[in-house]
Amino acid sequence: MQQTEWIRSLRAVRQFSDREIPSEVLRDILDTGRWTGSSKNTQPWDLVVVRNRDTLRALSKCGAFAGHIAGAALGIALVMHGDDAWTCMDEGRLMQNLMLAAWAHGVGTCIGSIYPADNEQRARDLLGIPKNRYLRTVLSVGYPTGPEALRLPPNAPVPRGRRPLEDVVNWDRLGNRNP
Amino acid sequence: MQQTEWIRSLRAVRQFSDREIPSEVLRDILDTGRWTGSSKNTQPWDLVVVRNRDTLRALSKCGAFAGHIAGAALGIALVMHGDDAWTCMDEGRLMQNLMLAAWAHGVGTCIGSIYPADNEQRARDLLGIPKNRYLRTVLSVGYPTGPEALRLPPNAPVPRGRRPLEDVVNWDRLGNRNP
Repeated sequence: MQQTEWIRSLRAVRQFSDREIPSEVLRDILDTGRWTGSSKNTQPWDLVVVRNRDTLRALSKCGAFAGHIAGAALGIALVMHGDDAWTCMDEGRLMQNLMLAAWAHGVGTCIGSIYPADNEQRARDLLGIPKNRYLRTVLSVGYPTGPEALRLPPNAPVPRGRRPLEDVVNWDRLGNRNP
Repeated sequence: MQQTEWIRSLRAVRQFSDREIPSEVLRDILDTGRWTGSSKNTQPWDLVVVRNRDTLRALSKCGAFAGHIAGAALGIALVMHGDDAWTCMDEGRLMQNLMLAAWAHGVGTCIGSIYPADNEQRARDLLGIPKNRYLRTVLSVGYPTGPEALRLPPNAPVPRGRRPLEDVVNWDRLGNRNP
């Protein structure tokens, strides 16, 4: 498969098997996160690998769409050093690298968003995160149960697929559709 | 090369050759951006491909570290539909996918940050971006001049490399360094 085709093949996975993630696979995923580029190379992040099942269950209740964390082999909490636009962009780059690195090993991931503020506080307490750090994202990580876990469930409350390329791309000025 | 090793090999490139980017390569890069996952699959973005040299030069003056845009084969402006944390995270994911997709074709990229507000307004005017859209990032895109373009210049005002894995990763609680 061509490299870009492989990147486009990334899917969110919400149903995880019991299969454990080998420590060398986990290390490789974390290391690819570590190497993510960031604004002025500030690397404004720490990662918390969560394996404790009670903690995963509690985290799964810290966001309206975070239920998948309860059944993940493990979670990776993205502890960020700021809440400004630039740090959030760095967080997005970090997510994408972690998700692709897992995908390279056949491991599925799904972003669990931690919100609103009272849920964030509960999640902070669970993971020992101080006031000068931010927790918006816990990534669920695990082997998919099977091929059905790679498809969006029929009742998913989100649009399917993507907008057409011609709708997304403009040339030299926004609104100019002619290359 | 192993897939994750390839992801880790991504470097920012600031010196670009005159070589043009074939339209099928550009299309593949844009398509990989288009397929980026986003919060609730909202795809809160439009892309503006900038080829006009005067516009590229003007954009290169819209950020303290955006000078590299002037010499890029083209720019890709990330026009975002919001400025909240979740949209900025989606922007980061989009950046990372575009940068990796270019890298897969041997094409270099560098993030040009558009700031502060008066610079953003000038860049908005250049690209015809209305008030309900946000422009924080123009990606420089082009073939590297050579191997030297893949190395950080000796006088770069940023730290080199990355923090050690043991410093980044915590286990079950922040501060717990024992797996």
